[in-house]
Amino acid sequence: MTMLNREKERGRAVERWVSPAVRTLRAYHVPQPDTLVKLDAMESPYQISDELKEQWSETLKSVAVNRYPDAQCSQLKSVLRTVFEIPDHLAILVGNGSDELIQIICLLVGGKGRIIMAPVPTFSMYQILSTITQSQFVGVPLNVDFSLNKETLLLAIAKHDPACLFFSYPNNPTGNLFDTHLIEEALKRSTGLVVVDEAYFAFCQQTCIRYTAQYPNLVILRTMSKSGMAGLRLGMLLGHSQWVTEMEKLRLPYNIDSLTQASGFFYLQHYPVLESYAELVLQERQWLEKEMTAIEELHLFDSEANFILFRIATDAVCFFEALKEKGVLIRNLHQPGGALENCFRVTVGTRQENQLFITATKDVISAIRAPVGS
Amino acid sequence: MTMLNREKERGRAVERWVSPAVRTLRAYHVPQPDTLVKLDAMESPYQISDELKEQWSETLKSVAVNRYPDAQCSQLKSVLRTVFEIPDHLAILVGNGSDELIQIICLLVGGKGRIIMAPVPTFSMYQILSTITQSQFVGVPLNVDFSLNKETLLLAIAKHDPACLFFSYPNNPTGNLFDTHLIEEALKRSTGLVVVDEAYFAFCQQTCIRYTAQYPNLVILRTMSKSGMAGLRLGMLLGHSQWVTEMEKLRLPYNIDSLTQASGFFYLQHYPVLESYAELVLQERQWLEKEMTAIEELHLFDSEANFILFRIATDAVCFFEALKEKGVLIRNLHQPGGALENCFRVTVGTRQENQLFITATKDVISAIRAPVGS
Repeated sequence: MTMLNREKERGRAVERWVSPAVRTLRAYHVPQPDTLVKLDAMESPYQISDELKEQWSETLKSVAVNRYPDAQCSQLKSVLRTVFEIPDHLAILVGNGSDELIQIICLLVGGKGRIIMAPVPTFSMYQILSTITQSQFVGVPLNVDFSLNKETLLLAIAKHDPACLFFSYPNNPTGNLFDTHLIEEALKRSTGLVVVDEAYFAFCQQTCIRYTAQYPNLVILRTMSKSGMAGLRLGMLLGHSQWVTEMEKLRLPYNIDSLTQASGFFYLQHYPVLESYAELVLQERQWLEKEMTAIEELHLFDSEANFILFRIATDAVCFFEALKEKGVLIRNLHQPGGALENCFRVTVGTRQENQLFITATKDVISAIRAPVGS
Repeated sequence: MTMLNREKERGRAVERWVSPAVRTLRAYHVPQPDTLVKLDAMESPYQISDELKEQWSETLKSVAVNRYPDAQCSQLKSVLRTVFEIPDHLAILVGNGSDELIQIICLLVGGKGRIIMAPVPTFSMYQILSTITQSQFVGVPLNVDFSLNKETLLLAIAKHDPACLFFSYPNNPTGNLFDTHLIEEALKRSTGLVVVDEAYFAFCQQTCIRYTAQYPNLVILRTMSKSGMAGLRLGMLLGHSQWVTEMEKLRLPYNIDSLTQASGFFYLQHYPVLESYAELVLQERQWLEKEMTAIEELHLFDSEANFILFRIATDAVCFFEALKEKGVLIRNLHQPGGALENCFRVTVGTRQENQLFITATKDVISAIRAPVGS
């Protein structure tokens, strides 16, 4: 190649070296939180008390920031094991949020020619991380009520023999728990990994851990994000050591920084406080469901998590924009013709936030019903 | 497939789904720091003053840990740009340490059938992350004095047309700066990405940033780890937006947690303090070089970083173990017959730590010279 050709080559280097799948990907969009009421991201609305904050901050002062973190996360893992009563036959892998654990899974068993599967609609990172790791993502459509369709699911497993099958349990963004008999059926028929992502465990206390006794290919994901630690980035994976040993090789050695390790350790020692916040969220969800059900234009789906999926019987685009205009940010899931057409996801907030959402929703719907000048 | 066959299949699932390259990989080994003097990891030996720590801890108290971090890291990037005088034509990507940035690079341009290259011996993560992303790693041997071999390097580029070529500058673990004319020559002849990893910039103030004006395929890596922030996990990549835009798609949206963002922002606002610590490290390196040179059995290589590579003219295995026995941990690079045969890397510590290392080294060498009972 001549120097000139090489220079041309460099000019179109992105096209040459980056796969078309990645080039067409859009970066995960996170709206700027310049809103009054932020109910789009399943965060806990509660912060620990000033007294606990004081203790926490003392703990952080003793962290030697100049040293690398504990690569084994020994203390953190030990408190995770105790708090979540992890059985001895399961090893723990900790991640920079569940996101990193999903990435590790996709790196381990995915890649060119490998299929990663999940019932859809579901958490978008399964598909994004499949694409990033050059795996092929196959979405298996849920029923219209967002339950698993047994026949479709089992046929898809038989046809594609997926390297990995993700179940979001309860499912984000639909909020429902899948039938565990069908999850077990999928486990029986899968030769690859089956991942049950229990990100919302704090709100439903339902788990598939018991199936790990019989199925070594089952791994469980949990995250601390929904229980008031979203800012720390701390997720965990539970699985048999034959799998976790391989995953450990793909984990960046210092993936959990020292402050997250120390903070996670501190927060988990006060887990009953966080549990009481989750209890408050459940009470608020009940209140929100009652208020929302009273609004004629909203159709609610049952939720086992800290958010509510609803469909709106009016102009979805107008609704979302007008709500944002009023300073209330929820998650817009509407795609014309898609399974989530006219659907939105609202995170359960404090009573005040929920009240503001309800008031804004009523105002917006009234305005759409009777436009100015009509 | 019958249920029985499927059960058998699950039994050997790891073998089936995990690539042989990953299965033969060993997890990155990090020794437990239960030693008296830890000089193995290029950490800064200095912590910020109690007064600054107090201010830092107040900053952390104001972080809303219940909320997700700023996905754009806006404040952090802005202070990084100012402190490191990043030119406007370069975009910034922040990572969970440089490790994550190397992973993003390998994910972006690597994969099956792609070649990732680096002069060797060098930082081990280039090869590990190549393997993890199913790319093929090609190491180009350095000269015996660890300088770049022009002919070998250019031939390797022409032969393999690497998707990515890493230069560690100064090179870890050898400590020397490569000839920038040869780096430019490699840039001219590469069609893929060229990465100059300036992890030790704080100690040499040498950079290849100027070449980005002419070569859009050049990206620069920096890390805050060696300047007293190893525990925070904060690295940055500088590159043209055509590349950084693609890398952003592969970045986990919340890869930098809120405490690291707030702490990084705080520490960088006090960067002159950290620079004064780097200055102290350079003075200590001088002292250490003088002391080590006086020990007959040690051959030192020139260093432009916060560590010193040396070769020992005695039993390397005995030396390392005896040193550890005395509570001094350095990095053992010895591999029989390899380019680093009988070599060790010692991080520059405080005067007290360096003194302990020197004393222990002298004692151990004397003991090896004249074994008990001889």
